[in-house]
Amino acid sequence: MRIQVLNRVLASNDALANEYRKEFDKNKITAINIMSAPGSGKTALLEQTLKEIKNKINTFVIEGDIKGDLDAQRVAKAGGRVYQINTDGACHLDAFMISQVLPKIKTKKIDLLFIENVGNLVCPAEFYIGAHYNVMLLSTPEGADKPVKYPLMFSKADLLIINKIDLLPYVNFDFKSLEKSLKTIKPSLDLLKISCKTGEGLTDWYQWLASHLPQTIGRKLFKHRKEQG
Amino acid sequence: MRIQVLNRVLASNDALANEYRKEFDKNKITAINIMSAPGSGKTALLEQTLKEIKNKINTFVIEGDIKGDLDAQRVAKAGGRVYQINTDGACHLDAFMISQVLPKIKTKKIDLLFIENVGNLVCPAEFYIGAHYNVMLLSTPEGADKPVKYPLMFSKADLLIINKIDLLPYVNFDFKSLEKSLKTIKPSLDLLKISCKTGEGLTDWYQWLASHLPQTIGRKLFKHRKEQG
Repeated sequence: MRIQVLNRVLASNDALANEYRKEFDKNKITAINIMSAPGSGKTALLEQTLKEIKNKINTFVIEGDIKGDLDAQRVAKAGGRVYQINTDGACHLDAFMISQVLPKIKTKKIDLLFIENVGNLVCPAEFYIGAHYNVMLLSTPEGADKPVKYPLMFSKADLLIINKIDLLPYVNFDFKSLEKSLKTIKPSLDLLKISCKTGEGLTDWYQWLASHLPQTIGRKLFKHRKEQG
Repeated sequence: MRIQVLNRVLASNDALANEYRKEFDKNKITAINIMSAPGSGKTALLEQTLKEIKNKINTFVIEGDIKGDLDAQRVAKAGGRVYQINTDGACHLDAFMISQVLPKIKTKKIDLLFIENVGNLVCPAEFYIGAHYNVMLLSTPEGADKPVKYPLMFSKADLLIINKIDLLPYVNFDFKSLEKSLKTIKPSLDLLKISCKTGEGLTDWYQWLASHLPQTIGRKLFKHRKEQG
């Protein structure tokens, strides 16, 4: 029964997501869905990213949490424009939730829309929310065995960010075993190693972002650098 | 619609769980449901625990994972008797899955049955699986803000174990804010601080276990200590 109900829900979800995705495309909005387990550093990544890019391009963040607005507060403090969704128990964002927010922010100029999903390695991967890219975080203390256990999430990701590499000396994280399992699950997956705490690797992330935005927008992220160079 | 379907599913789930829970009680089996986010250390806790108690009382482990048997392999290597459930996509264990396993292990003598749930801070808390106690792990790198974001899981826990305290010097974990939010969500929640890596705090965990087992069984866990004392 679960499968029948889920298939029905997914079909109407996808139809709705495809509808507003066309609006994104028409308005040159690039939407990025950020997913991970709880506590992998999704909000920390957004905080760092907003500090770096908020004065260069027009960003907006939709925060998804079961309860509360802690993450929205953090994003706002980092200078981001943000809207908090509370799923009230649901383990993931879906197209309906996003579609309810979009009319409220449609007057805003947005180049890059980050959608921070509920912290969960399972359910968010099942629901298409109209994003152009899925960016997934895995933090080093969680261990390198996660692709084997949660293959759907990794197979749906366009970029895998290994966060908290500053903790590598203190945790057991086997990059070789990670790469081995990713070869089976998603050989084409881009991979970056970063620390939101120390800032290591963040330039690679900004470069990834720039190269996945429309050229005229992406160029703005490295404007100053180019002028200096 | 989600809520109607979920209520129907939950009612039949609970009825089934109550049925086999009576069998647990009749056979003096104590069942403990272990829940946490992915990578918080559920399997590491079981590995340590089995090494300590497997020759003192009769234990059995049911492992829940979406895919693969990595955790069952680890438990078996630590000397545990184990059965692996693959949920094939489902984000939690339910009473039906457990009820399918029980006939296969009913000839075994079991005092303590550990059930390691799927790594997920949301869905496992929604499904009663007939356990006497819910033990929840939160690891220090995940951050202390999790009760605010995932209140149902914390409210369903009988014991909260803060794991990976060996990482406290390198991560930002605010015990005061944790305790403050727990006061609202579940003031009666037992709390232990441990490191499965260094072994710190594990004696407290074994004592908690002993005091939550039938007296004749629990006494066996500290038999040697008492004889020495």
